[in-house]
Amino acid sequence: MANMGLATATNNQVILRDYVSGFPKESDMYMAATTVDLSVPVGSMTVLVKNLYLSCDPRSRTRMGKPDPSSPASLAHAYAIGKPITGFGVCKTIDSGHPNFKTGDLLWGRVGWEEYSLITPTLSSHFKIHHTDVPLSYYTGLLGITGLTAYVGFYEICSSKKGETVFVSAASGAVGQLVGQFAKMSGCYVVGSASSKEKVDLLKTKFGYDEAFNYKEEHDLSAALKRCFPEGIDIYFENVGGKMLDAVLQNMRTNGRIAVCGMISQYNLEEPEGLRNITNIYHKRIRVQGFAAIECFDRYSKFLEFVLPYIRQGKITYIEDIAQGLENGPSALIGLFHGKNVGKQLVAVAPE
Amino acid sequence: MANMGLATATNNQVILRDYVSGFPKESDMYMAATTVDLSVPVGSMTVLVKNLYLSCDPRSRTRMGKPDPSSPASLAHAYAIGKPITGFGVCKTIDSGHPNFKTGDLLWGRVGWEEYSLITPTLSSHFKIHHTDVPLSYYTGLLGITGLTAYVGFYEICSSKKGETVFVSAASGAVGQLVGQFAKMSGCYVVGSASSKEKVDLLKTKFGYDEAFNYKEEHDLSAALKRCFPEGIDIYFENVGGKMLDAVLQNMRTNGRIAVCGMISQYNLEEPEGLRNITNIYHKRIRVQGFAAIECFDRYSKFLEFVLPYIRQGKITYIEDIAQGLENGPSALIGLFHGKNVGKQLVAVAPE
Repeated sequence: MANMGLATATNNQVILRDYVSGFPKESDMYMAATTVDLSVPVGSMTVLVKNLYLSCDPRSRTRMGKPDPSSPASLAHAYAIGKPITGFGVCKTIDSGHPNFKTGDLLWGRVGWEEYSLITPTLSSHFKIHHTDVPLSYYTGLLGITGLTAYVGFYEICSSKKGETVFVSAASGAVGQLVGQFAKMSGCYVVGSASSKEKVDLLKTKFGYDEAFNYKEEHDLSAALKRCFPEGIDIYFENVGGKMLDAVLQNMRTNGRIAVCGMISQYNLEEPEGLRNITNIYHKRIRVQGFAAIECFDRYSKFLEFVLPYIRQGKITYIEDIAQGLENGPSALIGLFHGKNVGKQLVAVAPE
Repeated sequence: MANMGLATATNNQVILRDYVSGFPKESDMYMAATTVDLSVPVGSMTVLVKNLYLSCDPRSRTRMGKPDPSSPASLAHAYAIGKPITGFGVCKTIDSGHPNFKTGDLLWGRVGWEEYSLITPTLSSHFKIHHTDVPLSYYTGLLGITGLTAYVGFYEICSSKKGETVFVSAASGAVGQLVGQFAKMSGCYVVGSASSKEKVDLLKTKFGYDEAFNYKEEHDLSAALKRCFPEGIDIYFENVGGKMLDAVLQNMRTNGRIAVCGMISQYNLEEPEGLRNITNIYHKRIRVQGFAAIECFDRYSKFLEFVLPYIRQGKITYIEDIAQGLENGPSALIGLFHGKNVGKQLVAVAPE
């Protein structure tokens, strides 16, 4: 039931200062202290939540640029200047006018980068959290969009077969660490690339990758791939785009598959890199498929059934990189584009 | 039954002089008169055929370049210097050691560019011709690889829905003319590009395209596509690659599909053009699928069942561009890369 709405609280927010071109900087965002009613408008179907954790996603960068005014999709996708940026978060219900959520309920889904968000839940934007025997923060990643991305991307888009060879870029990142483990569970040979020796070591010692390399130390990416895949690559789980994709295309096998989960190397460029090996798609009959987990929520409960037992049995390794405090959110988000995060980057906004 | 092999005949052949780089020229091939036994070796499973029609395919260009010696696939794909080039043709059995073919049988499949070929039939390389109430030359195209390409490409790879928008490049070519008609039969809006006013007129007046443009007269391909598809493109049937593909990627709709049948604009370039709009695959969740009909012969009989009634009822328009005489084969083949052909280019080698 909606309260009468007398109590208020300070609501710190992360605001987009202006549209971003090139690499985002901390100064592209600023903190603002606003005030929030601690109850939902009487008669509304909204829910007021207190945000506990926020997910840092490379995809946010694609929403920071100036939208194309002639494209309704672009306008809908872009963040608004002067407003809090948004993303996925884990939160607790403070007050609710919605029949499915009551005070104290935990949920995850779309929220603002702020201490409190007033949300309008839908079946594909907000999900009640039923399993709390696992860390709550996991719902920003492994048990949220990140995990669903790895699951749909690997099991549906890649259509792997036992014994196939799999390459994952940004392999120690939020999605990559899971894809490598799914690939091993499926009996594949899996190699990952990352941006530091520390991450390469993690890939081999923690995430079960058969082989890994630091792409920053390779002069010739195609040669590095050839070294790891003398017989070629059956499946590429694409997180970075650009030069790496071009090198992969040279090393794909006939009838290979490329699941395009993201192209983080390209988001901050004024002009994307030119790719020269696209004809391989024809010569080698490759399937390249872009996808977004936000269009796959109909598989979410199936995914949970699949992944929760592995987590409870300790059969999945999952590393989180947690920034403390909303005020440290912008630098954590920007760190993604410089490869600073190890594992899933998130922000802890308030104690559970 | 194999004859005893006394009779011989002159066998004119089109020989590859040297590996080709850049645009192929007539001088890259030469005619040679050899001698052929008019009977198959005793005890062999081979078939001696007289070639009636040869198909000119852009794909041949990909076999004329110097192979990569480290790649078994590349070595197997490449033509051999000093040997006849090969392709698909329609032919008549002169002598046979194979139980499935007897003297006089008509067939289509892989043959050399020569008057007579000694072939070793397999289930996926040579097909007996059972229906002769349609022009025999059609088995180089509409009833052969070309038709199967359009069929598999459009009906399987594109997964079209009624009302979707379809763009076809090289639309008046062998495959394009059919894809446009299949798209119209499926209730789609279909636009084609071609290289001359004559072809553009054909697209609209003969092949049922809703709209068409001459890409050579457009300064801005993306703007041309925007003009024809103000709401964007759901399906692109890709025959050309390069700049056109880059412009299409800018104009694709979310969840669009690109069937990559060929990239003829790129085969003769020393260095392929760089594509800058690849990130759209991610942003718009596009599926890009390379395919080759030569891997789809298991659908050939189903395809024949589908297409023969349309041909007999005059419901499919099919234009052939027939060069007369094997000696005119090289220039006909090379003409493909300069857009000289109107419709399916083939070579008539001998009278039926």
